[in-house]
Amino acid sequence: MHTATIDCLLDYDVASPTHFLFNIEAAFHDSHKVLEERLSVTPSVKVRHFCDERNGNRFFRLDAPRGLLSVNYHARVELHHAPVPLYLDEVPVTAVPDDAMRFLMPSRYCESDIMSRAAQQLFGHLPLGLSRVRAIESWIHDSIHYLPGFSNSTTTAQEVFVQRAGVCRDFAHLGITLCRALNIPARLVVGYVYFDEPPQDFHAVFEAWLDGRWVMFDATRMAPIDRLVRIGTGRDAKDVAFATIFGGVTMLRKELTIDQGDIRPGEAFSSQPAVLTA
Amino acid sequence: MHTATIDCLLDYDVASPTHFLFNIEAAFHDSHKVLEERLSVTPSVKVRHFCDERNGNRFFRLDAPRGLLSVNYHARVELHHAPVPLYLDEVPVTAVPDDAMRFLMPSRYCESDIMSRAAQQLFGHLPLGLSRVRAIESWIHDSIHYLPGFSNSTTTAQEVFVQRAGVCRDFAHLGITLCRALNIPARLVVGYVYFDEPPQDFHAVFEAWLDGRWVMFDATRMAPIDRLVRIGTGRDAKDVAFATIFGGVTMLRKELTIDQGDIRPGEAFSSQPAVLTA
Amino acid sequence: MHTATIDCLLDYDVASPTHFLFNIEAAFHDSHKVLEERLSVTPSVKVRHFCDERNGNRFFRLDAPRGLLSVNYHARVELHHAPVPLYLDEVPVTAVPDDAMRFLMPSRYCESDIMSRAAQQLFGHLPLGLSRVRAIESWIHDSIHYLPGFSNSTTTAQEVFVQRAGVCRDFAHLGITLCRALNIPARLVVGYVYFDEPPQDFHAVFEAWLDGRWVMFDATRMAPIDRLVRIGTGRDAKDVAFATIFGGVTMLRKELTIDQGDIRPGEAFSSQPAVLTA
Amino acid sequence: MHTATIDCLLDYDVASPTHFLFNIEAAFHDSHKVLEERLSVTPSVKVRHFCDERNGNRFFRLDAPRGLLSVNYHARVELHHAPVPLYLDEVPVTAVPDDAMRFLMPSRYCESDIMSRAAQQLFGHLPLGLSRVRAIESWIHDSIHYLPGFSNSTTTAQEVFVQRAGVCRDFAHLGITLCRALNIPARLVVGYVYFDEPPQDFHAVFEAWLDGRWVMFDATRMAPIDRLVRIGTGRDAKDVAFATIFGGVTMLRKELTIDQGDIRPGEAFSSQPAVLTA
Repeated sequence: MHTATIDCLLDYDVASPTHFLFNIEAAFHDSHKVLEERLSVTPSVKVRHFCDERNGNRFFRLDAPRGLLSVNYHARVELHHAPVPLYLDEVPVTAVPDDAMRFLMPSRYCESDIMSRAAQQLFGHLPLGLSRVRAIESWIHDSIHYLPGFSNSTTTAQEVFVQRAGVCRDFAHLGITLCRALNIPARLVVGYVYFDEPPQDFHAVFEAWLDGRWVMFDATRMAPIDRLVRIGTGRDAKDVAFATIFGGVTMLRKELTIDQGDIRPGEAFSSQPAVLTA
Repeated sequence: MHTATIDCLLDYDVASPTHFLFNIEAAFHDSHKVLEERLSVTPSVKVRHFCDERNGNRFFRLDAPRGLLSVNYHARVELHHAPVPLYLDEVPVTAVPDDAMRFLMPSRYCESDIMSRAAQQLFGHLPLGLSRVRAIESWIHDSIHYLPGFSNSTTTAQEVFVQRAGVCRDFAHLGITLCRALNIPARLVVGYVYFDEPPQDFHAVFEAWLDGRWVMFDATRMAPIDRLVRIGTGRDAKDVAFATIFGGVTMLRKELTIDQGDIRPGEAFSSQPAVLTA
Repeated sequence: MHTATIDCLLDYDVASPTHFLFNIEAAFHDSHKVLEERLSVTPSVKVRHFCDERNGNRFFRLDAPRGLLSVNYHARVELHHAPVPLYLDEVPVTAVPDDAMRFLMPSRYCESDIMSRAAQQLFGHLPLGLSRVRAIESWIHDSIHYLPGFSNSTTTAQEVFVQRAGVCRDFAHLGITLCRALNIPARLVVGYVYFDEPPQDFHAVFEAWLDGRWVMFDATRMAPIDRLVRIGTGRDAKDVAFATIFGGVTMLRKELTIDQGDIRPGEAFSSQPAVLTA
Repeated sequence: MHTATIDCLLDYDVASPTHFLFNIEAAFHDSHKVLEERLSVTPSVKVRHFCDERNGNRFFRLDAPRGLLSVNYHARVELHHAPVPLYLDEVPVTAVPDDAMRFLMPSRYCESDIMSRAAQQLFGHLPLGLSRVRAIESWIHDSIHYLPGFSNSTTTAQEVFVQRAGVCRDFAHLGITLCRALNIPARLVVGYVYFDEPPQDFHAVFEAWLDGRWVMFDATRMAPIDRLVRIGTGRDAKDVAFATIFGGVTMLRKELTIDQGDIRPGEAFSSQPAVLTA
């Protein structure tokens, strides 16, 4: 049984009264159980919580006055990631559940509608199933250069495919796009996980719908995703931004501390390929 | 009290067994009451219905065998469009309902995240409220050339803004994008309406959230939208495509007959500006 | 010794007085010798000729009055294509002639500046030389779907790379882009050649600088390019458009007749792979 | 009579032997007379000079070994900028000289082929002539946010138009694009000029062809362009990059010192609107 302890500190300099929408709390999701959590906001303002029922994402909103805003989320969770079998079939579109159909559609950062030929060429000849999505994951890992600062918050999968560089979010968007282009439902997951490249930051990975379940993939291979504490699930990054800010604000600090007990710097992958055990 | 009678015929040549997702039925929505409706599919295949509860969109799915597929939807509805007041306030972001927040986010065809400066320049100086969204609607009407064949199913609002040409869907996407860029929730509506430019086709317009209600806008000004029979509501066209087809298919016919009783060719706007009456 | 006879008829409906820039005459180039040629323009307007000395492209300009404009170019040429050796080295950048350096730069339809990583991944591991550019040509042939009507006059190589469809001009632009991204000077060539897919049209191919000469490649493999009658050479299609029109004009006819003597329909490639003989 | 003294220091850390193409010397151009100049390169490598005859741009090429490369260009020039009259006509396309026609075509960073409708809407109603290009210059100045770090070396005019932010090069590209879209030949100029926003850097402006001469415009209004020492003239930035580098290199220093005698910090515009004197 693994546990994870998270501390997330966000400080902003708010130039004028501003509305914030945050998505930093551990999701309602059966891959973990929250043992304790604490959210504190300074100054003391009214915090309104709501949950996106379809995805289990927990949001909170607040109006920050001019000045410093500090948000601190602390949680300790028990992880219950289901092991991923070695073999999983793809699901023919006709058998995709109604509420997963939307994860076949293109979205802001995942232009699957223009990449069907490319996806077919690269992966159309492979046997269907988990191994095909693993092939996508590997291809992205091998083809896209992990290059912080190259992309920005408006970069799309198409651009990543052409320019072959990006960060975790870009890797995930490209994975989602290639899956959808092959009629495999796919979606973005963001979460907390010990990240093998300091500084610690929110991590983004993707999930594909295989054999009746969502299976997680991380084309960056920089984090032990069987330890990820899920924050949000969505069509792409716009659905699960950790902060959406409606005003003029400067971020002063983003500091994440993720303690996963037995994982120490440089050892993030000692447990790999545990994610593959049946 | 207005009524509308709709006949929608869609014929496809299906080259190999193909899954279809249709969204052509009158939505569950309080702007109309369905008096009668009939859906027939030839050949006789199992048709599975589902509803997107959040938006009231009704979908049906089916597996078509090789050969001809004919879909025929007939409905007669009674229209209950609420009149639009002459004055409506914008809603500050903090007061936007939780479940409307998603209509502030960029989507596949509406890149509001890169158009905030442009939107501010064009409309930032105007008084807030209904009149500002009317100004957006007018600006699009005056600036974008209605040009069938110019754009295609992957054209985005950014491209429309640069190239200044498109069809109803493009006009609507640009309206949505400019609204969202100004922090006004906005979404796409597709429906049946007598269209003042034959042939009859599905129409696309946009809605903005003003003063606690969704208000409809049509920057093409080609149809009496107070008579629109709503089919679907979504973030953009990908959410409400009339047909999403997973296979190799050729459309043979798309024939819409929309009888709105008192509206005859060339008279579509005799009732305008009824949409503005308080 | 091969000859070719060309007839090019272009008819336009000119809505208002319009300036035209044409590039349809056989270029000044040592791959052919013009035996006879004739240009006629109706109505009789002043035709001004000039030559782009750097490339040998011949242009003519005219002001067309309102009404019908007919342009008819007829030529008979003797072809002197140099055979292409089986082995050719690439030229290190330091040895690229000064006046070929511009063919290393990105251009309107060839965004080589954003495709260096992709080009390296696909072709960076191959032995340098003619065979590497042949590999690019083959990859494009195998990967890009020849699909008239898919692209338009503003489509760029990046879009072709993502969407994997286009026509000869798109195939050539992508070839140019991949070469430049690998530091191989490359340029567009348009010309007349018997095209194995009716109707006859202007053809576009690309040239790469190898071992001190320009070598022609045709990723469409639809025409015997050792019979091409060169019209223009440029960075990309914008430099060598067959007609650049400054006004409101409708094309009524574009009819090309290309007689290459011994090549008959369906036999365009009987002579292949002659282009490969040393 | 004004003079300018320039010192340009460029230092690179060259990871492996690399070919460089530089364009940092004062151009061959009648807007200035070089009184003295000196180019030094360390280590001592062979430097090959060539001139692009069509534009007067002076380039030099060199092969740098592994290690530090230092390039130092010093020049003192006498400025002979012709005053710009208050009134200048536009030139109808038919009267544009043959060798200026290429400055009507779209280029890598100036997609004038997709912006004709937008340009017509914004500027098509204005009286033709210098005042119309001044209107373009003013519109860019007022509409585009000068924001270092927002754009990068692959940003195009279309993106600047949509996103409304950029640096001098982006301002110039947009000016070029809007001019070309209105059939006014336009081109990029880079040069040395005292820049009212430290640190000193290469400046980029644009020129339009009006009444038989090239007239310079600076939509940033950050430098006294009647004092600009021209380095290069081209279709866009790709033609006149100060350094094009074919290898793995890190820039260590770019230090420009531009002494324009009578202009001191904060006074760059004491002489304005001299550019407007007839």
